[in-house]
Amino acid sequence: MENWHLFSEDTASFMRSPVREIFKRVDLNAIYSFAGGYPSADTFPMEDIRQLASEVIDQVGAQAFQYGATQGVPALRKVLSDRYSIPLERVQITTSSQQGIDVCTRVLIDPGDAVLTSNPTYLGAIQSFKSYRAEIVGVAPSADPAAYESAWRAALAQLGRRPKFLYMIPDFQNPSGETLSLEQRKILISLAQEFDFLIVEDCPYRELRYSGEPLPTLYSMDPDRVIHLGSFSKIFAPGFRLGWIFARPDILDMIYVCKQSLDLCPPVFDQYLAAAFMGSGRLDRNLARSVELYRSKRDLMLSTLPGCMPEGVTWTQPEGGLFLFLTLPEGFDSVAFYDKALDAGVAYVAGSFFHTDGSGRNTMRLNFSFMTPQRIREGLHLLGDLLREELG
Amino acid sequence: MENWHLFSEDTASFMRSPVREIFKRVDLNAIYSFAGGYPSADTFPMEDIRQLASEVIDQVGAQAFQYGATQGVPALRKVLSDRYSIPLERVQITTSSQQGIDVCTRVLIDPGDAVLTSNPTYLGAIQSFKSYRAEIVGVAPSADPAAYESAWRAALAQLGRRPKFLYMIPDFQNPSGETLSLEQRKILISLAQEFDFLIVEDCPYRELRYSGEPLPTLYSMDPDRVIHLGSFSKIFAPGFRLGWIFARPDILDMIYVCKQSLDLCPPVFDQYLAAAFMGSGRLDRNLARSVELYRSKRDLMLSTLPGCMPEGVTWTQPEGGLFLFLTLPEGFDSVAFYDKALDAGVAYVAGSFFHTDGSGRNTMRLNFSFMTPQRIREGLHLLGDLLREELG
Repeated sequence: MENWHLFSEDTASFMRSPVREIFKRVDLNAIYSFAGGYPSADTFPMEDIRQLASEVIDQVGAQAFQYGATQGVPALRKVLSDRYSIPLERVQITTSSQQGIDVCTRVLIDPGDAVLTSNPTYLGAIQSFKSYRAEIVGVAPSADPAAYESAWRAALAQLGRRPKFLYMIPDFQNPSGETLSLEQRKILISLAQEFDFLIVEDCPYRELRYSGEPLPTLYSMDPDRVIHLGSFSKIFAPGFRLGWIFARPDILDMIYVCKQSLDLCPPVFDQYLAAAFMGSGRLDRNLARSVELYRSKRDLMLSTLPGCMPEGVTWTQPEGGLFLFLTLPEGFDSVAFYDKALDAGVAYVAGSFFHTDGSGRNTMRLNFSFMTPQRIREGLHLLGDLLREELG
Repeated sequence: MENWHLFSEDTASFMRSPVREIFKRVDLNAIYSFAGGYPSADTFPMEDIRQLASEVIDQVGAQAFQYGATQGVPALRKVLSDRYSIPLERVQITTSSQQGIDVCTRVLIDPGDAVLTSNPTYLGAIQSFKSYRAEIVGVAPSADPAAYESAWRAALAQLGRRPKFLYMIPDFQNPSGETLSLEQRKILISLAQEFDFLIVEDCPYRELRYSGEPLPTLYSMDPDRVIHLGSFSKIFAPGFRLGWIFARPDILDMIYVCKQSLDLCPPVFDQYLAAAFMGSGRLDRNLARSVELYRSKRDLMLSTLPGCMPEGVTWTQPEGGLFLFLTLPEGFDSVAFYDKALDAGVAYVAGSFFHTDGSGRNTMRLNFSFMTPQRIREGLHLLGDLLREELG
């Protein structure tokens, strides 16, 4: 049986994650890995989980192992509603925030529809948009508000039709680590209102702020136009695959119906663990320790880089999150350089993978959450030496 | 903002699960519920889970809470590969077997493509097929092999083009409880070969056999043409949302790439729990007890029904699974009767919901796994009295 006539047309646009392919090739613990977006294992509250597992078995009992509501377990929706002051009917639990992206794309996008996003942007979002054959329109960030707005206006004019939605990670973006200013947020909201498109706001890192002041979410600025995605991966543990969506009821209802056929309901036992973890105050205690740990790692990155990188290399100054983004001299190719770095024992993700148009060959994403401080230092020196050699 | 221009075209074909809507309306524990496909809470191995949670924390450690491989945790793929003698490269873990159905449909179906299935069939599969705008072609079962084959040939002739795949639950089907004979299985395989379509074989109940002899899976009869879906929901607990797919490597690879953008990976901690539960022999011990329990409930159903149902009502004789299927006199409407039954305190699922063409208004699905024996007996008598009254 030939396979050329097997698959749906969508599959021709499927894109393999280069990041996930890297993980298949190497043991991340055996190399200096700046590659993954992995939280530090030190932040996983394993003794809490052991205790909570017993508590859930005792207090919730069989219901924690039975089929659950498609919207999510009421106890978990309630703690999220309370924590973020969102009406309960606007809260849907997802089986990972990646599912949040996917289900939004599924209910909003037909082949050929346009999605606006930052260029670069999150790879898993690009994968999802491509898999539904969206046209992805990426706009490079700009610190100058006037330039930022006119870049968006130019893109919208060139598109010449209404985009379905804008996808944005406002806080400590993946991959750049950058945060949208209040003025930039206002520009996006007002463009969305003027050109009548929705915004999908992805906030997996929002609670991991190490300096500066929190800015309002896009959702809070226009709750009927913004679909807000949250994640337990960086504030509890990614192995639970739990996230949430805040959205206005008619959109959430469509997502709810879609989710019935996707997986019936999110993992139930895990939801009760998350509800108990968040509701008991343990999450906030654990988060404070994680923020402390990651702040020191970010500071270590920022203080180590100047001493080990060759001239002409620049990087972002993230106020939170898990990443910073390196820009190398024009002409450097981080995709071609990757195998050499990996042979020498250091991994990163080539920046072009995050670009919607294949640009950014001279950039790379560096994660600072996963490794120990000592290995971060050693890894940066190794990478710096390799780059110095390469750049001559 | 109006919402008429918001959603993708697929959403116009989304279908709400009437079963899930029932669960939103009533507390299943407060009524006699033959409605859900819920396993008995008595089969959930809660003390095993408490112990396994601690073991996984001790022995696997942080890896059980980190992001995992998209294919699934190697330990779980290995125990499945060993248990069912399937090469490891043909094993993919899914976030529920519902996701297995959905991801197969996603990678195989374009709008307008045809899916063959039994009529009636699993509601969650109908939802998924409709959500991708498949044309669903249902063929009623027939105990006579010659009639069975010619019904399929007639459907294929009328379709006049190659269907993409056939979806089938060969063992203790949902909703009918019926099992395909070996001869029927051979007919389906040979039709698939002749007309060149794939088969998606859904086997959530296969291990719950109470009488008769196991028959070969469709997968074992043509492993390159059949995609086999399995589920932990009835042999461990549905709250974990874990299932698996066995398929030939090129199809599995496409599913793997799709799954990257669906949810990155299945829940990791839950996968380690399932691997330890299955690998340690606990699953088989627990399963033996579940089979014992469900056999006695099935037998109770079959021995109670004759004494309480009015004349003209017939039912299937399931050899396993969770359901039997009632057929009432022509003209009876189980959808219209539903509210009356619910008001009196007894719930079922109207059979027409499982029919691809809205037929079967005079049928209903009765679950026998969820309630205690005493409540099964009381519920059947109550339902019988209501039906007798209704049918005059």
